[in-house]
Amino acid sequence: ISSKLPHVGTTIFTVMSKLASDCGAINLSQGFPGFDCDPELLELVSKYMKAGYNQYAPMSGIPILRERIAEKTKLVHGVDLDSESEITVVSGATEALYAAVTAVVKKGDEVILFDPAYDSYAPAVELNGGIPVFVPLEMPDFSVNWEKVKAAITDKTRLIMVNTPHNPSGYVWTHKDLDTLADLIQDRDILLVSDEVYEHITFDGRTHLSLLTHPMLRERTFVCGSFGKTFHVTGWKIGYCLAPPKLTEEFRKIHQFLTFSTATPLQYALADYLAEPSRYLTLPDFYQKKRDLFCAGLKATPFEFIPAQGSFFQMVSYAHLSQESDYDLAVRLTKEIGVASIPISVFFSDKKDHKILRFCFAKNDLDLNKALDQLININ
Amino acid sequence: ISSKLPHVGTTIFTVMSKLASDCGAINLSQGFPGFDCDPELLELVSKYMKAGYNQYAPMSGIPILRERIAEKTKLVHGVDLDSESEITVVSGATEALYAAVTAVVKKGDEVILFDPAYDSYAPAVELNGGIPVFVPLEMPDFSVNWEKVKAAITDKTRLIMVNTPHNPSGYVWTHKDLDTLADLIQDRDILLVSDEVYEHITFDGRTHLSLLTHPMLRERTFVCGSFGKTFHVTGWKIGYCLAPPKLTEEFRKIHQFLTFSTATPLQYALADYLAEPSRYLTLPDFYQKKRDLFCAGLKATPFEFIPAQGSFFQMVSYAHLSQESDYDLAVRLTKEIGVASIPISVFFSDKKDHKILRFCFAKNDLDLNKALDQLININ
Ligand SMILES: CSCCC(=O)C(=O)O
Ligand SMILES: CSCCC(=O)C(=O)O
Repeated sequence: ISSKLPHVGTTIFTVMSKLASDCGAINLSQGFPGFDCDPELLELVSKYMKAGYNQYAPMSGIPILRERIAEKTKLVHGVDLDSESEITVVSGATEALYAAVTAVVKKGDEVILFDPAYDSYAPAVELNGGIPVFVPLEMPDFSVNWEKVKAAITDKTRLIMVNTPHNPSGYVWTHKDLDTLADLIQDRDILLVSDEVYEHITFDGRTHLSLLTHPMLRERTFVCGSFGKTFHVTGWKIGYCLAPPKLTEEFRKIHQFLTFSTATPLQYALADYLAEPSRYLTLPDFYQKKRDLFCAGLKATPFEFIPAQGSFFQMVSYAHLSQESDYDLAVRLTKEIGVASIPISVFFSDKKDHKILRFCFAKNDLDLNKALDQLININ
Repeated sequence: ISSKLPHVGTTIFTVMSKLASDCGAINLSQGFPGFDCDPELLELVSKYMKAGYNQYAPMSGIPILRERIAEKTKLVHGVDLDSESEITVVSGATEALYAAVTAVVKKGDEVILFDPAYDSYAPAVELNGGIPVFVPLEMPDFSVNWEKVKAAITDKTRLIMVNTPHNPSGYVWTHKDLDTLADLIQDRDILLVSDEVYEHITFDGRTHLSLLTHPMLRERTFVCGSFGKTFHVTGWKIGYCLAPPKLTEEFRKIHQFLTFSTATPLQYALADYLAEPSRYLTLPDFYQKKRDLFCAGLKATPFEFIPAQGSFFQMVSYAHLSQESDYDLAVRLTKEIGVASIPISVFFSDKKDHKILRFCFAKNDLDLNKALDQLININ
């Protein structure tokens, strides 16, 4: 068998989480909460399982969950979606991204990816015969340089993959970003996939601007969301895709043959749970406290950093301290200091080392404080 | 957006299940159990959710579940698998099929599909740039005509997709089938995907012969299995792929970007549940009673049939009764007689009407008896 993805090895998330566990280190690498979800959510799953909701859900998701997602979208973004034709429940945002790319990208199509990007984007494009075209983000804040995007667009550009709040940097798109993107693609046949899994996790009063909120972008975008990130259950693998009816129709044709449907009792539980908006509206405050705690502690370490605008993640820079590669440093910190992180070189198309580590602060305050105490000792 | 799957509409499963529910008919169409799973299995899910097993599982599945799948494979088939390198847990057999096809099929590759086949095979091949080559099964028992397979093999043949026990017919592959296949592909660079989701559901003393049991086939095969079908929880979307290390390596690269991982609490619950082999070893008897009940009742109807060898399904023939299309008859029986079925024309590449309906007998005896009483009234 000749590999279709010869360059793909074990993901950094698997590598670092395993190393953390082998070393008994505090795991601030892979992006998942280090605390439990609301017990009420678990009670709801038990209730629906016992009530017999264990057979196939409808391919597009159960109607009541799609309606609740529409209500959330209305409340948060002021946008009306039709739950019948514009919302699909899927087995995690990863599936949403893969299905959207598969629905759109044909052999030879160019797809613009911002660099660095989450590790599933380029393989999804390549497996569908597309050609990733990387546009570097601007250092040090990882904002978009729109001149570079403009220069990257050709007649073959079919799709641009957006991610806001951005992983690994936490950069949050502005109105200007949305408007500029709209101007650039206006007269072109370009679609958008927008990874918005950290939609409810923004700081310092910043608002997440979904591509849905821009009427022209909305007509061309598959928005990918994640209940795992929002309700502290990343292991449940349940998310959604929001897209206009014509795009949703093609998206569902792919979803139908990728996984067909998503765990029924989890869908019913989440539908009930979403009925109370405070459960997601309180999220920015909840995570702001964690980011603040983590950043306050980081000041006592020799790292340099700009506080993250959103997401689970805080990047830190150490070029002034050492010339060690980010991978080597991440491994050494895990082994010697007992704190695991992600070397962000893995997110870059050329794997270039920028002497930056990414820490996940979606953890217990106890663990965060302990990690910070240990990080003071780096040398 | 121009469709990559222009011929795909709403699946027959969605259409008929909805019609059944709109008409208050007994739903013997879509293949899912009409009864609940073991409450102990649900207790295990609740237990692990409450114990905090709600974050990402390892990409390949939790180790203990992979070990339990290895134990089951040893017990049932006498085959030793390495749980580290030959077993991957996925979000349902549909994902396993799609990921296996994606791992193997490149643009221009020919893939042999038996005709009729489950509806996800051909789209999976096409989305990966492959060319489905259909080999018709033999009427009336849907056995394989190996001369026709031989004639269909070319230098471009890269993959053959096997399904035993077969959906929709229930045909179960014999030793002779396995041996003949091995002879045919021996000197060729051809891989196999084997959909064995009904592995534990065979009748009249027949044994399911996994492609794993044939040493030469095993080296080339991705076996796709389903806990949903085995433990009456089709809505949980959890299954597995068994394949030799080199194939598993490529399979996982795809799975990683398709869904990444599968619901963690369900994995832990199933691992515990599998520890007691009687839970799957009793399945043939359990379903044999249902098939026997259903076939006994069918004798009082004007349908013609050969009792199914395996699977959830019993096909019936009505060419001697009416020239109505199978789709029209299935719709009419749902509306007028209150029993929903699947017209098997949808499983054929040319959609040809063979005047055959498929009934799912994985239902409560009460519903089966009621359905049979109503079916006596067809005209
Ligand atoms: C699917 S594992 C990766 C989780 C994540 O989003 C991250 O750590 O960036
Ligand atoms: C995924 S819905 C179809 C279920 C099934 O296997 C069938 O009815 O054939």
